[in-house]
Amino acid sequence: MVDLQARIKAGIRDVPDFPKDGILFKDISTLLLQPALANAILDGLAAQYRDVGIDAIAGIESRGFLFGNALALRLEKPFVLIRKAGKLPAEKITRSYELEYGVAAIEMHRDAVQPGQRVLVHDDLLATGGSAEAAALLLQDAGAHVAGFSFLVELGFLAGRQRLAPIQTDIRSLAAY
Amino acid sequence: MVDLQARIKAGIRDVPDFPKDGILFKDISTLLLQPALANAILDGLAAQYRDVGIDAIAGIESRGFLFGNALALRLEKPFVLIRKAGKLPAEKITRSYELEYGVAAIEMHRDAVQPGQRVLVHDDLLATGGSAEAAALLLQDAGAHVAGFSFLVELGFLAGRQRLAPIQTDIRSLAAY
Repeated sequence: MVDLQARIKAGIRDVPDFPKDGILFKDISTLLLQPALANAILDGLAAQYRDVGIDAIAGIESRGFLFGNALALRLEKPFVLIRKAGKLPAEKITRSYELEYGVAAIEMHRDAVQPGQRVLVHDDLLATGGSAEAAALLLQDAGAHVAGFSFLVELGFLAGRQRLAPIQTDIRSLAAY
Repeated sequence: MVDLQARIKAGIRDVPDFPKDGILFKDISTLLLQPALANAILDGLAAQYRDVGIDAIAGIESRGFLFGNALALRLEKPFVLIRKAGKLPAEKITRSYELEYGVAAIEMHRDAVQPGQRVLVHDDLLATGGSAEAAALLLQDAGAHVAGFSFLVELGFLAGRQRLAPIQTDIRSLAAY
């Protein structure tokens, strides 16, 4: 996995001062432009979870949809949409979480998971862990078990892993800073 | 493909009065919960485009990311993000398009496509065609050629196909109403 991590880090574009001054943004869109690397990422994710007992994968809108659904297709598991508020049409449940300024809400269809299902939470990036935590709490609200957290990239200095650990300590990323 | 179309129509959930009264919303999230059907959809998309000369696939945020990136991975093509305004970090170009009430804007990194590249535009649903048209114009702004339009589902009565035809008449969907 060391080699894949090095390839991912080489493929990510660092954009200074986005979304605001002083933030060095990790732009994963450049990874998607390299098909061989993108397929190596999907292979890496599939290798991480092929032998773990998961029943479904939940992806966080919108970048979590990119590899989340591809992984679900590869592993032949249901893919559950975790969306920003107001997007899902049917009966849904909601969780709010704090942003640096203000509050965001995410939603999930109530019938998207079944009680007792083991669900993997996937997103592209683990930063402070706020959205992944809210997604996990949504799954628990619906009676599912959070079987793990999956990220392409982890910003270790933001301590997201510590925030998620009370829910589930099986937290994996393909590249960590 | 008739069989796949029937399976897709059977798998879609119709939600009345979303996002507003009188609209019958086609909810594709239920397709994603059925791994065999979801993989048949990906196989169907790949069959449609395996022998068409495309250099890249552009997916429209956020539901166009679901199968768009999976298709790009399968066909080993670059995947280009078309995002809502304010999400992309690096140098970008913008197109606005009219909604029923108001205006929306979508953006693409200027360097995500190369001049002359043949790019397929993908989204989950073709309704009026406003966002797909704006995405195609973005690609043209960057010097790319719009090689086709790909959708899972097409609402024929909204005449999106007629709107897109001046740009490219190769418009394919897996299921049409």
